[in-house]
Amino acid sequence: FVPPGVLPLCRQPPAWGRAPRQPPGLPLAPCRAFSNNKIMVELDESSGVATMKFKSPPVNSLSLDFLTEFCISLEKLENNRACRGVIITSAVPKIFSSGLDITEMCGKSTEHYAEFWRAVQEMWLRLYGSNMVTVAAVNGSSPAGGCLIALSCDYRIMVENPKFSIGLNEAQLGIVAPFWFKDTFVNVVGHRVAERSLQLGSLHPAPEAHRFGLVDELVPEEKLQEKTGAVMAQWLALPDHARQLTKSMMRKAVLDRLVAHREEDIQNFISFISKESIQKSLRMYMEMLKKKKG
Amino acid sequence: FVPPGVLPLCRQPPAWGRAPRQPPGLPLAPCRAFSNNKIMVELDESSGVATMKFKSPPVNSLSLDFLTEFCISLEKLENNRACRGVIITSAVPKIFSSGLDITEMCGKSTEHYAEFWRAVQEMWLRLYGSNMVTVAAVNGSSPAGGCLIALSCDYRIMVENPKFSIGLNEAQLGIVAPFWFKDTFVNVVGHRVAERSLQLGSLHPAPEAHRFGLVDELVPEEKLQEKTGAVMAQWLALPDHARQLTKSMMRKAVLDRLVAHREEDIQNFISFISKESIQKSLRMYMEMLKKKKG
Amino acid sequence: FVPPGVLPLCRQPPAWGRAPRQPPGLPLAPCRAFSNNKIMVELDESSGVATMKFKSPPVNSLSLDFLTEFCISLEKLENNRACRGVIITSAVPKIFSSGLDITEMCGKSTEHYAEFWRAVQEMWLRLYGSNMVTVAAVNGSSPAGGCLIALSCDYRIMVENPKFSIGLNEAQLGIVAPFWFKDTFVNVVGHRVAERSLQLGSLHPAPEAHRFGLVDELVPEEKLQEKTGAVMAQWLALPDHARQLTKSMMRKAVLDRLVAHREEDIQNFISFISKESIQKSLRMYMEMLKKKKG
Repeated sequence: FVPPGVLPLCRQPPAWGRAPRQPPGLPLAPCRAFSNNKIMVELDESSGVATMKFKSPPVNSLSLDFLTEFCISLEKLENNRACRGVIITSAVPKIFSSGLDITEMCGKSTEHYAEFWRAVQEMWLRLYGSNMVTVAAVNGSSPAGGCLIALSCDYRIMVENPKFSIGLNEAQLGIVAPFWFKDTFVNVVGHRVAERSLQLGSLHPAPEAHRFGLVDELVPEEKLQEKTGAVMAQWLALPDHARQLTKSMMRKAVLDRLVAHREEDIQNFISFISKESIQKSLRMYMEMLKKKKG
Repeated sequence: FVPPGVLPLCRQPPAWGRAPRQPPGLPLAPCRAFSNNKIMVELDESSGVATMKFKSPPVNSLSLDFLTEFCISLEKLENNRACRGVIITSAVPKIFSSGLDITEMCGKSTEHYAEFWRAVQEMWLRLYGSNMVTVAAVNGSSPAGGCLIALSCDYRIMVENPKFSIGLNEAQLGIVAPFWFKDTFVNVVGHRVAERSLQLGSLHPAPEAHRFGLVDELVPEEKLQEKTGAVMAQWLALPDHARQLTKSMMRKAVLDRLVAHREEDIQNFISFISKESIQKSLRMYMEMLKKKKG
Repeated sequence: FVPPGVLPLCRQPPAWGRAPRQPPGLPLAPCRAFSNNKIMVELDESSGVATMKFKSPPVNSLSLDFLTEFCISLEKLENNRACRGVIITSAVPKIFSSGLDITEMCGKSTEHYAEFWRAVQEMWLRLYGSNMVTVAAVNGSSPAGGCLIALSCDYRIMVENPKFSIGLNEAQLGIVAPFWFKDTFVNVVGHRVAERSLQLGSLHPAPEAHRFGLVDELVPEEKLQEKTGAVMAQWLALPDHARQLTKSMMRKAVLDRLVAHREEDIQNFISFISKESIQKSLRMYMEMLKKKKG
């Protein structure tokens, strides 16, 4: 149930074009594995389950290119009637996704900020509102926007390694998670846990994240694939139509809220991110990251 | 605080008539036990506690007749100033209530669907909005509409038998719990648990239901009556007026939402249930139930 | 982010006057410890942490004078750029605060009730909406309005003594917690726990309060100060601006609701408290308290 008002994302039309919605009754076009630059997608037509693997080293950061590819891949699967569920995971060791790419938010034009933020919104609208069963197989750390991706799925399985952490840590960087990150978070962990975690910008080690429901299940890394498949099978056992309507009923209020305030939210982002104090914080943060690496 | 807009249910005026609201100061008419076809009601005037026992074998399904009798019984107690609390339980072994009667939703006229759905709404509006203390003594399985009855009470005690399960399993049947079932569920278990449980159409064994708060307490079957009485006494120790206003404050938003959208909700139900695909699912489900029995 | 529409509290302008907001760039006026009648305030300028100690024996009840002093002290700190966090605790043994002063609600004029209720609202609007980090160090029992003060802070640490209890027990007195007490409570413990606890007017011993999240942490009395300081330091490690915007995002809906209905809420209070039946309950309750003492 992609909400009304969500425009198709038109940047970078991919070489393979848009998968047209199949008219009912026509034979399905077989969907092979496809990979672009940053995300590898495989569809197992026998089970109806696709896997999206983030492969954008070093940390799967959500650049404009990554987000665009994500949205197009998701739309392609959404329109493919052979696909009923998606597993989202990472091909990069130790990291699921590091979240929004800070270089997209630093020293760029107002137009760029607007385009970038629209792509972030689009990603969330499509994922949180997906008709497919979505399972996050969180096989590495998952701060900020990476956490949002996990939160937007129907179910979250995380590798039980306490070195992997997850959370909306925006406040640590001097920035603020937007209201729809917050709404998604509150829907998963409740108001109190969200209030405290967001104010402290907490990154929760996997066991702690599991304790208060930020992730649904922990497994040893070697069991992740098997467990994810089993969970997906359990969700796919339900009739699609009833499951989709139920999901829509649960998520509609929060999706509608962004749809209603989308342009305003973009303007807020631009005016916030354009502040010299915020730009300075982000530059310092990037310097720190560079030193860590070097 | 029966919300404004709730019309008295006028179908099948019972032989014993409607209990008139007692003008203050007049002596109370003694209220004897009364039983119609499907529900046995007993009022202990010394404690002010009534017991409603479902006795509609084989599975206490919520037919139009059952719902009508339920509403009339509840209204009778609500208007009886000698009655301050109601215990709801089953006289049929192993089942609390199996939920809405599928035969009422299959192969009937539009008018019938409308009348049936209005009775379902009425039952919930009266029970969730009751001024009395309501305690569910869940002594058997309680799927779908049976679960809704339990959720609408102030407190839920369930027999600790793991063979008894409870949940809003509509999605398993290819149908969707209406928004006010969902609202009631979210108010008890929170958004995340509700989202997952509704999408999977889960029936939770008693111990699991207790773990996430779907029921408040588990007891051995032989202790159910004693425990229920003790809980009721605890709630009745509070001054009625303050307790009622508090209950109304907590539940008003969700009650008002159905009252505001009642006709629309009936139309939604009719158009959904009239679909050939849904009718087919329900017929298949009924076939399956028949085979199980046979 | 004191919400728009919150008028400055003009009763009893204190001898030391109102601390003017410092224009940016000017040197800060050093803020010494100040104490009026009922609350002792100390600011440690090196850490930026103030401590407000209730010292209004026997039970720190929230009289009109107490509330006025509370609001003025809080505003003074809020406007002092040297102050970033406040610890709220009691100087009276065994009691944090006993809640609203019943003598202010009994046998007084309509005008007095209005003034009193406005002061209660003001206290909550300022505390729940404070830009500072607020930590409650609950070193004694904390019923009703005392519990509200704790609930309005960012974090609650309670002495682990099971003789100390906390809760919104208004229903026990035959009165009803206003909707914004309820909203604050629901934001901390969720809808189900709040519904049950408010209807029963429960006072929860510290360990029970901790179990369902009414307080965040329990410590032995001798560790309270140390632990409170450590928690405050953790919260102050975040950049103020991001933390404040995040806090505002989480609390705005509930604050706005009272601001929008403030006069109506005062009128409701007046008409409720003026009822002879309510006055009688309160008088009986005060008699009982007197006998207990005597």
